[in-house]
Amino acid sequence: MLAAAIDAALAAGRQAHGLTSPNPPVGCALIDDHGALIAVGSTRPAGGHHAEIVALRHAGERARGATAVVTLEPCNHTGRTGPCAQALIDAGIAAVYYLQPDPNPAASGGAQHLRDAGITVGRIHRRVPELEAWLRATRLGRPHVTVKFAQSLDGYTAAVDGTSQWITSTVSRRDTHRDRLRRDAIIVGTSTALADNPSLNARAVDGTPFPEERQPRRVVIGSRDVRGAARNLTRLGFEQYATIDEALAALYADGARDVLVEGGATLAGSFLRAGLVDALRVYLAPVLLGSGASTVGGGLARTLAEAERFELVGQCRLGDDMRLNYARR
Amino acid sequence: MLAAAIDAALAAGRQAHGLTSPNPPVGCALIDDHGALIAVGSTRPAGGHHAEIVALRHAGERARGATAVVTLEPCNHTGRTGPCAQALIDAGIAAVYYLQPDPNPAASGGAQHLRDAGITVGRIHRRVPELEAWLRATRLGRPHVTVKFAQSLDGYTAAVDGTSQWITSTVSRRDTHRDRLRRDAIIVGTSTALADNPSLNARAVDGTPFPEERQPRRVVIGSRDVRGAARNLTRLGFEQYATIDEALAALYADGARDVLVEGGATLAGSFLRAGLVDALRVYLAPVLLGSGASTVGGGLARTLAEAERFELVGQCRLGDDMRLNYARR
Repeated sequence: MLAAAIDAALAAGRQAHGLTSPNPPVGCALIDDHGALIAVGSTRPAGGHHAEIVALRHAGERARGATAVVTLEPCNHTGRTGPCAQALIDAGIAAVYYLQPDPNPAASGGAQHLRDAGITVGRIHRRVPELEAWLRATRLGRPHVTVKFAQSLDGYTAAVDGTSQWITSTVSRRDTHRDRLRRDAIIVGTSTALADNPSLNARAVDGTPFPEERQPRRVVIGSRDVRGAARNLTRLGFEQYATIDEALAALYADGARDVLVEGGATLAGSFLRAGLVDALRVYLAPVLLGSGASTVGGGLARTLAEAERFELVGQCRLGDDMRLNYARR
Repeated sequence: MLAAAIDAALAAGRQAHGLTSPNPPVGCALIDDHGALIAVGSTRPAGGHHAEIVALRHAGERARGATAVVTLEPCNHTGRTGPCAQALIDAGIAAVYYLQPDPNPAASGGAQHLRDAGITVGRIHRRVPELEAWLRATRLGRPHVTVKFAQSLDGYTAAVDGTSQWITSTVSRRDTHRDRLRRDAIIVGTSTALADNPSLNARAVDGTPFPEERQPRRVVIGSRDVRGAARNLTRLGFEQYATIDEALAALYADGARDVLVEGGATLAGSFLRAGLVDALRVYLAPVLLGSGASTVGGGLARTLAEAERFELVGQCRLGDDMRLNYARR
């Protein structure tokens, strides 16, 4: 009876993915005694309501006696909005099932609070892909870091003459820009900021940027001052930090939970050597160059046995390119 | 009505894949007026019967008035066995449908010969993956060449200390050995023959080689004499040629149609620069090394626009590895 409600809650959470930091992208579905859907809610952009509150408002009086399915344990703290656990109690919800426990010490305890109020509470063990970056960031107290590469089959991001536009196909680049929209920040090193004059914004196929309020933060890491010289970033506005640690601390403090490192090779190598890479997103073009600019700067392992192995969590064909997603084990 | 017969013929051809050179791995299905399967045949190992003859023998008298579906146009020449077109006529076959025309000038004309005998002949346009290497080899008059890489995500086949065993997973290595069994020859350069002491045979998971009669030819290309020093190859027997052109000519003359180049980087680069690579088979391990031995030796393109682009024709997850198959456009 819960299967349809779980799917509805997951779909609602998916819609909010990338739009809610520092809050998690949660989905909530309310069903009646016969399993019929009463209302669905997704977390609103930061400062707005959590998913449970959105669903309860849609349901109104029909919430009384209903069952709630939520992708994350209802919160127990008063942030910008009141605690969701109390709101579920006040609305007369009879049972609450949640998929992932809340790892946030300030917000956890929601399940216990609901139980104490006499509500049936159950945990449904199920992965919620959209929550994974947020869950890991919350546990670690720093943003979840994904390193992106767009490279030839033999691991070069540019030919020996420096040409790199475009190594991947139009469909891959469209995928890249949709992905940027879901991130809280896009990070590059100072060399990339100077050499490529990147805009680091999410754009449509015709080059038109998406609205500024949906854009990720633009971040440069490194001690060289790139203001002025990095023309597009200077025009659009960006943040710069001297070190990776400073950048991650400042980004987390300001609400970023899911950030993307787009290069260059030196910065990617530094993130990897520091053990700060939670995921890889690799676009593989169907081309061999034989020489050129390497994807990762500097060695990572002198011998094979020492090399870190990732878990393949997704593969997707994009024209003749492949997109491969890996997670830290 | 032909769909089931086409599937049966394709399945029969698939069974013969890798066992028939210099003959093509063909499948043949005979059906009656109601579309019911009478008999199926696959090409026997070289010197044995072609698929049509095998199917006709199975069918016996039931072949009279039957319809034949063959993955390749029936041959019209007398090689080690008589021409198949004449055998189909003699057996009283009423109609013949074939999927791919025979590009071999010595053997073609089968369809016309059947038509001249009053038999209904049709061409069914459908790819036959198992025939592609043979078709291309026959058109070019040299073996079809596949270059294989087993590499890290960032394009290294070994770490800086030379360790490369094993960069890929057990399931990938099993796939590699099954693939070797289907090839007519496995080719390496002299440096690889000396440095890795390879056996170049197809082995089961526990290391036991498959029977010698099923093994591909072991081939070394390069002018350095590796006899003795390449211990495993010396023990098992191998052929050596000074140049790629000599090797391909000799292999083709002796019946090889589908060969696999396994490295090293220098030889792979030479094949690529000579425009002699028809397919790539890439095993991608979920690991980043940052430095090490490159997959391809020497540059292939100075600028991105000059780089050859391949077509992605297959992708397959093998544990946390990916196998990617590419074909020349």
